[in-house]
Amino acid sequence: MAGFAEMPSPPYFAVIFSSQRRDPDPAYDEMAAALDALAREQPGFLGRESARGADGFGVSVSYFSSEAAIAAWRAQGDHFAAQRLGKERWYDEYRVRVAKVERAYGGPR
Amino acid sequence: MAGFAEMPSPPYFAVIFSSQRRDPDPAYDEMAAALDALAREQPGFLGRESARGADGFGVSVSYFSSEAAIAAWRAQGDHFAAQRLGKERWYDEYRVRVAKVERAYGGPR
Repeated sequence: MAGFAEMPSPPYFAVIFSSQRRDPDPAYDEMAAALDALAREQPGFLGRESARGADGFGVSVSYFSSEAAIAAWRAQGDHFAAQRLGKERWYDEYRVRVAKVERAYGGPR
Repeated sequence: MAGFAEMPSPPYFAVIFSSQRRDPDPAYDEMAAALDALAREQPGFLGRESARGADGFGVSVSYFSSEAAIAAWRAQGDHFAAQRLGKERWYDEYRVRVAKVERAYGGPR
């Protein structure tokens, strides 16, 4: 799932999710892949950039067109269930920050 | 450098840096560690959360108290030189998005 997200013209929204995983769990990887596919069908979802190091610490940023799109995704049934499992089973700790992207650039090309 | 950043009360700012590294380079790791220490002395720097996977794709989010603090760090001499090296030598591609954090929460604790 690694890779860059699209670069639409700001403003749009970023949900920054940082987390410390517990021990590896194949069920987590399956759920993450399924949720990633589901997110991509979600109205207003603009893409995701994520990485996790060997120490289990990960940062994932999901981009949305609006606050309403974030709220809809947060309440989506399968995703809602996954959030609960994450809290109970998969994450030692996590943080969520919702931010409005004001400008963006990239390179070298 | 893995770990969570502080959770001050919003609003504050996030600089989301995503990048695809080229081949591993010990000089990069040294520079990254030195810059991380330097950032922590920078006025208005609130912390950083970052991860990079085995595929070389990384996401790093740095938090600042204000746009002025971001501008000062962007222009800081050693950091400025590192940005140039990054473009020339270390990154196949990168993206920078500056966003205003509007709300934040965490858990499970």
